[in-house]
Amino acid sequence: ENNGQGLLLTVLAHKCPGWQAMSSLYVPPPKCLEKRFVAPQRHMFGPGPSNVPPRILAAGAEPVIGHMHPEMFEIMSDIRSGIQYAFQTRNKVTLAVSGTGHAAMECAIFNAVEPGEDVLMAVNGIWGERAAEIAERIGARVNTIRTPAGSCFTNEDINQALARHKPCVVLFTHGESSTGVLHPLDGIGDICHRHNCLFVVDCVASMGGAPLYMDTQGIDILYTGSQKVLNAPPGTAPISFSERAWQKVFNRKTKPVSFFLDMSSHNIPSLAVLAEQGLENSWCRHQEVAEYFHEGLENMGLRLFVKDKNVRLPTVTTIVAPPGYDWKEITSYIMKNHKLEISGGLGPSVGQVLRVGLMGCNSSKASVDMVLEALKDALKHCHKSRV
Amino acid sequence: ENNGQGLLLTVLAHKCPGWQAMSSLYVPPPKCLEKRFVAPQRHMFGPGPSNVPPRILAAGAEPVIGHMHPEMFEIMSDIRSGIQYAFQTRNKVTLAVSGTGHAAMECAIFNAVEPGEDVLMAVNGIWGERAAEIAERIGARVNTIRTPAGSCFTNEDINQALARHKPCVVLFTHGESSTGVLHPLDGIGDICHRHNCLFVVDCVASMGGAPLYMDTQGIDILYTGSQKVLNAPPGTAPISFSERAWQKVFNRKTKPVSFFLDMSSHNIPSLAVLAEQGLENSWCRHQEVAEYFHEGLENMGLRLFVKDKNVRLPTVTTIVAPPGYDWKEITSYIMKNHKLEISGGLGPSVGQVLRVGLMGCNSSKASVDMVLEALKDALKHCHKSRV
Repeated sequence: ENNGQGLLLTVLAHKCPGWQAMSSLYVPPPKCLEKRFVAPQRHMFGPGPSNVPPRILAAGAEPVIGHMHPEMFEIMSDIRSGIQYAFQTRNKVTLAVSGTGHAAMECAIFNAVEPGEDVLMAVNGIWGERAAEIAERIGARVNTIRTPAGSCFTNEDINQALARHKPCVVLFTHGESSTGVLHPLDGIGDICHRHNCLFVVDCVASMGGAPLYMDTQGIDILYTGSQKVLNAPPGTAPISFSERAWQKVFNRKTKPVSFFLDMSSHNIPSLAVLAEQGLENSWCRHQEVAEYFHEGLENMGLRLFVKDKNVRLPTVTTIVAPPGYDWKEITSYIMKNHKLEISGGLGPSVGQVLRVGLMGCNSSKASVDMVLEALKDALKHCHKSRV
Repeated sequence: ENNGQGLLLTVLAHKCPGWQAMSSLYVPPPKCLEKRFVAPQRHMFGPGPSNVPPRILAAGAEPVIGHMHPEMFEIMSDIRSGIQYAFQTRNKVTLAVSGTGHAAMECAIFNAVEPGEDVLMAVNGIWGERAAEIAERIGARVNTIRTPAGSCFTNEDINQALARHKPCVVLFTHGESSTGVLHPLDGIGDICHRHNCLFVVDCVASMGGAPLYMDTQGIDILYTGSQKVLNAPPGTAPISFSERAWQKVFNRKTKPVSFFLDMSSHNIPSLAVLAEQGLENSWCRHQEVAEYFHEGLENMGLRLFVKDKNVRLPTVTTIVAPPGYDWKEITSYIMKNHKLEISGGLGPSVGQVLRVGLMGCNSSKASVDMVLEALKDALKHCHKSRV
């Protein structure tokens, strides 16, 4: 019988006749993989990912079963129920895409839009820009409306833009994490439908942390990510299509550019925690904690980037970068000394703000106290120029 | 101070003026999420996903850290080293895409191919068909060569097809899991490069289970999945680009259709186990176990679908469906009575074969004995018509 090495030589000679000549090209097992990686415990108070609590981590350590096993149909159905609850919708086409928030954004746009069609992207931060770029890549005619970072559109702005551009799809970002704005959604669905247009909403940074009623608000496609208020690892993205949206997808003339995202891929998030807590309780807690946080910041003499209280995103707070300081020194100081992540700006808010995300299990007054403490400490110890 | 309910009413009235009118539309928390899901323990001997061993599950239960945290650069670098080893390459552009094997296939094609360019897809099973469909969706001119299910192309076939179609990209499936064929790769790289064409290889079902030397075999783009021989959950897909491939990607005239897959998304698999075991030991074990399995099947009077021993895929074995039996009854019987998954055919092998995948930790003689036992039991108890 062959011993290991003898078999090895047999296999290599058999499968790869030229293997001996290759020895100089051989890539050895990397030493760096010999150490065991232990992830550090940190307070994940940036705009995402947020902390994953033990119960959700433990669920991820359950055995893997097959995508065609009988339990999978029940799991898929449970996931659908969980997303229907979280989105407040009764849409049948409700599922989790196996991918990140970006994959969900592409899933919405790839399926709803055909090349040459007019779309309207509402840009008040980086996510509207990103949606515009994605639609452009697939050959849509992209129109945009723009408003300064930190502000919102009025329903009258929207009505006029729809009348002018006659798009078949409009996309809004509910929680614009780059600027800290929670965009009001009431009434937009009706305006879109009067203009015979689908109303698509990105709620990656807001879902579960701020009120959202997909059906009542007339949203046609709604998607989010798993690594924000849901406190799960990134990689699954809940999405839902209204009957109206589904009719458009179903009656397309061309195939979507992606096979992977062609509404045939289904996967799994964790929604039980949200269902237990109650969606409104989650919204309330996020709002209450955000107000407590904003008050604490103002008491410290810091200013909020979003001036209108009514459109402040409760999940991600944007603080005007403290004058005289280097914002990077502040975030680094806090990471190093408090094991706590907060971040700088993104897109239109780069260099102008600090961003603090308090999502899901991180949305608590204790977390706020921790952040305020860390900020006070940083402002005391970081270098300040005269202003 | 606001109590919970008081605050709830305040928040709702404030954020959603119409909330009271919505009560009839309210979607309550789903009862189905109240139970705790416990995944059953099963032998995952289908063509994937394979079993995830405790050490890899435990790694998935480590805390989540941020994509911009300092450790992440080290993790990304370790992942690159692990993939370089598993692929036997020194390519700098080596990473894991955050997505499934399908996402990796789209990543390869979306980045390497521009609309209007000629590609050649080698179709000897469902994965070649899938690659052709993906290239078609992005507007490539798709040429195919075809060979009957269970067989391979000769290098002369390939040379002629390249001379005729002059493609800029050729795609082969190393491990065609739908038919159980391991396609020989030696020499194809040189042929492709003589025809000024990139050599793309799908090794989703074979990587780690059969010899593969990316650099020596002149492969320009190579990708795999995490849920096969690597025994990790699905959702991360290793991919590598040669300098030649990268030059084509870098000098594109058009942007890839997907932003998400535009070579800017990086993520994490688990490769330490493979590095510890040694790649060749893994190949050997898979080959030895496959031969032991094939012998056992033939001793039972069963026939193998792939006649040429040299091109039998060691990770997924295709068995000619036992005459007189309903293959579905066999797979169901084994799942029910042995808690063991094996599957029927896929694509060109539907209705013709049983497929057994023994990958990574499942590639052992003990697993083979388990499968043979289950098959014997099924053939004894399932209904057999006269043939």
